[in-house]
Amino acid sequence: MSKLPNFHSLACPAPLPPGERVLLGHGSGGRLTAQLIQQLFLPAFANDILCALEDQATLDLHHLGVAGRAGAEPRLAFTTDSFVVRPLFFPGGDIGRLAVHGTVNDLAVGGATPLFLSAAFILEEGLPLADLRRIVASMREACADAGVQLVTGDTKVVDRGKCDGAFITTSGIGVVPPGRNLALHNVRPGDCILVSGTIGDHGIAIMSQREGLEFETALQSDTAPLHDLSHTMLESCPSIRWMRDPTRGGLSGTLNELAAAAHAGVVIDEAAIPIRPEVQAACEMLGLDPLYVANEGKLVAVAPTEASEQLLDVMRRHPLGRNAARIGEVRGDHPGLVVIRSAFGGERIAPLLTGEQLPRIC
Amino acid sequence: MSKLPNFHSLACPAPLPPGERVLLGHGSGGRLTAQLIQQLFLPAFANDILCALEDQATLDLHHLGVAGRAGAEPRLAFTTDSFVVRPLFFPGGDIGRLAVHGTVNDLAVGGATPLFLSAAFILEEGLPLADLRRIVASMREACADAGVQLVTGDTKVVDRGKCDGAFITTSGIGVVPPGRNLALHNVRPGDCILVSGTIGDHGIAIMSQREGLEFETALQSDTAPLHDLSHTMLESCPSIRWMRDPTRGGLSGTLNELAAAAHAGVVIDEAAIPIRPEVQAACEMLGLDPLYVANEGKLVAVAPTEASEQLLDVMRRHPLGRNAARIGEVRGDHPGLVVIRSAFGGERIAPLLTGEQLPRIC
Repeated sequence: MSKLPNFHSLACPAPLPPGERVLLGHGSGGRLTAQLIQQLFLPAFANDILCALEDQATLDLHHLGVAGRAGAEPRLAFTTDSFVVRPLFFPGGDIGRLAVHGTVNDLAVGGATPLFLSAAFILEEGLPLADLRRIVASMREACADAGVQLVTGDTKVVDRGKCDGAFITTSGIGVVPPGRNLALHNVRPGDCILVSGTIGDHGIAIMSQREGLEFETALQSDTAPLHDLSHTMLESCPSIRWMRDPTRGGLSGTLNELAAAAHAGVVIDEAAIPIRPEVQAACEMLGLDPLYVANEGKLVAVAPTEASEQLLDVMRRHPLGRNAARIGEVRGDHPGLVVIRSAFGGERIAPLLTGEQLPRIC
Repeated sequence: MSKLPNFHSLACPAPLPPGERVLLGHGSGGRLTAQLIQQLFLPAFANDILCALEDQATLDLHHLGVAGRAGAEPRLAFTTDSFVVRPLFFPGGDIGRLAVHGTVNDLAVGGATPLFLSAAFILEEGLPLADLRRIVASMREACADAGVQLVTGDTKVVDRGKCDGAFITTSGIGVVPPGRNLALHNVRPGDCILVSGTIGDHGIAIMSQREGLEFETALQSDTAPLHDLSHTMLESCPSIRWMRDPTRGGLSGTLNELAAAAHAGVVIDEAAIPIRPEVQAACEMLGLDPLYVANEGKLVAVAPTEASEQLLDVMRRHPLGRNAARIGEVRGDHPGLVVIRSAFGGERIAPLLTGEQLPRIC
């Protein structure tokens, strides 16, 4: 899950005005989220691990008081996400599946093998127990698929009208093998940018469910666990610099995060971005830019250009990477900006989302 | 935080009827919570670690793929809790302070040194940023007091009316030293039961705030981090069998958990239970039984009788244990039952809470 919406570093324009209130846009993964994190959360909790600004905190075992030779021991990855998706059930998944995949993926794109999850449920008085049972069955299946164990949990119930059916927060622990170190500061000008498949499927599946839209082909969320794809990629191409799953804020959110934190320019070839025709059509109908629509089973990887062909080949042979594509590159010029080159040679800047495009998508 | 309300084992009467809905009592830490956990969560997620039924999952390093001699390596403790307290600010604390203390205490009573926290915020559109700032400042201070680092987080915003200001879920990682093993199955008939101080302060502080009650002396929540008290106790008395913090469900909830899981009887001397006169008075006025009122800065410990005097002495010399008392003992007879012996020699059974006494207390 992109840490744009989480505690992440982004270019951050104006300070939070006094007297202001929380807006939906503060949860969008865009500019307002960045502002909230930069101005409010980071100053309060600043520490080296949080400020590494990755999707997971990476903890050396010496942080845990366990002796070991530096660099020769595995490290722990630790991450958390709340899920507030509406509706609770949608084509291709539900809040439970999403809550497991989201945390598994945050660990996976950091190069960790996901191992243990916690789940904290906030339930609304009146939620049918049959719905809860369905959500829990779905989580159990998702845990089995991802090879993780749910080892601790909590349940709170709030009075009717004080939440929206169910909110679920999962946290995860994984292990990062010795020597593996994916980080934004590894990224170099000249590196290529790959995406593992079609973009916008999750957000559009949710939107079409909410709006009662019908398409000729069934549109499904892409929610999926990325642990095996990322493991396969890292085993065959250890030179991968950095990965991220472009969830809230969409592909553009992840690319802006990359550009801002790596102090690099990002140039994307629009025609190379894989996108389903029905997602494209829905976006046109709804007035949405697919670059800003959430994904829940895709990853973005940055790798040295010389590795790109082999990496693409490995990704395409994986069921979750069949539509993988090289979509652009990192540049030394225009640091901090994401530039989209159209098929006709035009160029436009894709900034961070201002406001909120699709609330409650995850 | 008592895992009664969490994924815990309790005597569990009837199966969940079909067509049923989530009730406030499912979050009470009482009978309905136990039912939900036993019938719905445990069957879905059953694994050895979850089924150990402690307040934290304890992970051997070999679970994490780290080599080490069995028994000679520290273990990891992992726990999670959501906080939905209403109002967000109350005498003696706020939701942020509670969210840090709750998770710190779940680790501490398991014998772990708390090290790292995550925090996931679900915010309601319209929450004043000044309130969020106050909550975050309070969390920062509570983290510093407890010696933990907040290393990863998440922020979601839901539309107005779809949550109640703010819900916060914290998860925590701690380290359990080699050889330390607090567990319900360690408890033996003849062991003594101690409590670290006055009971019911948190729940009554919240209730009096909600109801606008005034007392001659200011009633404050007891929310406090128990890491140092528990560490001090364990260092001076390594024979402690088991500890728990009696939060939701109150002292009675924790004692019932002890009786059920240890297959033992619990006999409590009512006159020995420390309780503030103003809490007693408020309970009488509100028709509440203080045994069922939540605490957020107290712990219950079970230890061999021969260690009780020394342990009580150590506890009373600690600022958070000044009012510590020996309140009862574990018995071989009437397994599963908690019996309260009154000052006049009468006996009554204190069962698990049925329904919900004080919703949204943590």
